[in-house]
Amino acid sequence: MLLDKNTRICIVGLGLLGGSYASALTRQGYRVTAITRRQSSIDYAVERGMIEKGSASVDEELLRDADLIVFSLYPHVFLDWIREHGAKLRPGSIITDVTGVKGCVVRQIQEMLPAGVEFIAAHPMAGRESSGIEYSDDRIFRGANYIVVPTEANTERGIAMCKALGETLGCKDISVLDVESHDRMIAFLSQLTHCIAVSLMCACDEPDLERYTGDSFRDLTRIANINDEMWSELFLANRDALLREMDDYRACFEELYDCIKTGNRDRMREMMRLSTERRKRFNKRSDV
Amino acid sequence: MLLDKNTRICIVGLGLLGGSYASALTRQGYRVTAITRRQSSIDYAVERGMIEKGSASVDEELLRDADLIVFSLYPHVFLDWIREHGAKLRPGSIITDVTGVKGCVVRQIQEMLPAGVEFIAAHPMAGRESSGIEYSDDRIFRGANYIVVPTEANTERGIAMCKALGETLGCKDISVLDVESHDRMIAFLSQLTHCIAVSLMCACDEPDLERYTGDSFRDLTRIANINDEMWSELFLANRDALLREMDDYRACFEELYDCIKTGNRDRMREMMRLSTERRKRFNKRSDV
Repeated sequence: MLLDKNTRICIVGLGLLGGSYASALTRQGYRVTAITRRQSSIDYAVERGMIEKGSASVDEELLRDADLIVFSLYPHVFLDWIREHGAKLRPGSIITDVTGVKGCVVRQIQEMLPAGVEFIAAHPMAGRESSGIEYSDDRIFRGANYIVVPTEANTERGIAMCKALGETLGCKDISVLDVESHDRMIAFLSQLTHCIAVSLMCACDEPDLERYTGDSFRDLTRIANINDEMWSELFLANRDALLREMDDYRACFEELYDCIKTGNRDRMREMMRLSTERRKRFNKRSDV
Repeated sequence: MLLDKNTRICIVGLGLLGGSYASALTRQGYRVTAITRRQSSIDYAVERGMIEKGSASVDEELLRDADLIVFSLYPHVFLDWIREHGAKLRPGSIITDVTGVKGCVVRQIQEMLPAGVEFIAAHPMAGRESSGIEYSDDRIFRGANYIVVPTEANTERGIAMCKALGETLGCKDISVLDVESHDRMIAFLSQLTHCIAVSLMCACDEPDLERYTGDSFRDLTRIANINDEMWSELFLANRDALLREMDDYRACFEELYDCIKTGNRDRMREMMRLSTERRKRFNKRSDV
């Protein structure tokens, strides 16, 4: 079964990402419901036509009615939720998530689920520095990458449905990675970059720097505006992979440091040329 | 004397920045000429109406005619040029530059100049990853910061003229910094960020990462596309200041590393909150 207009979708957790999923899927003509802690978020989403209806409690009817349930929760909240309410899920339904790291949740969730309920992990490489449903915006998916992270417990049907979900959101490139490759990739591309931006901002104690800055510093530190509760949890949930990526990056930084210190201009230029060559692969049309 | 429409301006070095100066100043109604090594760059600029006329040799008439001369050259080329041709400059004229680091050029240039010729150092915090006049674009100055870097050898008239130049280009915030503060600032805001981007790109040896990336990695590494000839010269020209900023940043990175390794979530969150708080000062309206 792929997604079709009869597929009923329930979002659990109406924050920035959950809200953006709801908007995107409703806009595509799906019947979307939601379960989230705050009634105000349900009200917000219903008033704006982002969902058909929702509940601030774990409404078993909404769960039973859903063919696909998207969990948009912090990792530990997701685990607690499944532990407490997993038995209420209907066999035949598929669940997916938006969690940024996978090793800490995927197999635990799969083991806790009742027979016949399939969890297929995934997430879009999209987000914003601000959190909360009021910042949700389905344009964040446009042109974004989407990654499906199956295990040996997943079926072709679950994987296909999850890929279809990424396409329906508006994502451009849908990839499949195993859990370990995913977490290594996310450590490098996302977590390490946030570590760098935070470190740079913490090293910034001169006043008035904003009067002198150019766009390179602004672009590099955009993500220094960071949700400390969420990111500290994600860093620790992926500790080993992240520390390895930090080590590798640090070794390159140290090499460049030594080139500058010793005046090794040739090696410095080699590193810059390697950097320039590799960066080309990441260009979007909007890059100069 | 401030800039007025009778001020004749000569650009020496028609690359990305020199060309962008020419376009901006011509658009504002100034009479702009140019001296640059390649005749093809002169032809390009004349054909597009960026300059009135120019020369691929050091034309003494163009120099004598100019009230203000903007040098847009690599630091060592700038020094060589003044050493060889400085005596041709007309007393009463003012010269300025776009060099990203100042300690390596300002006082040497000022000492070499004939009596009556004033060098007032400055530059916009603007640029692009691509070099050459064909990438020049005077929109890079819009909303950019502009920094004037006087020494004790400068006059009020020279400083005022240089500030007026920054405003005429379209820059938003015109600041004044002494040479040492400037070079410390540029080491942190510009050079360190380029070191980080290059190091990160050099640490990136997995294939297909572009299929998984989000915008944070793209934004952070935009400047990893780097002109190795220019930047290696600029790094070495500001070596001591840059190494100090690399040290300070590294200390913060190491602290975050230790927090992740030891599971010190409280301190990690403190760093993230400091980072978030400080980053607010750098917001442009376009930031989320």
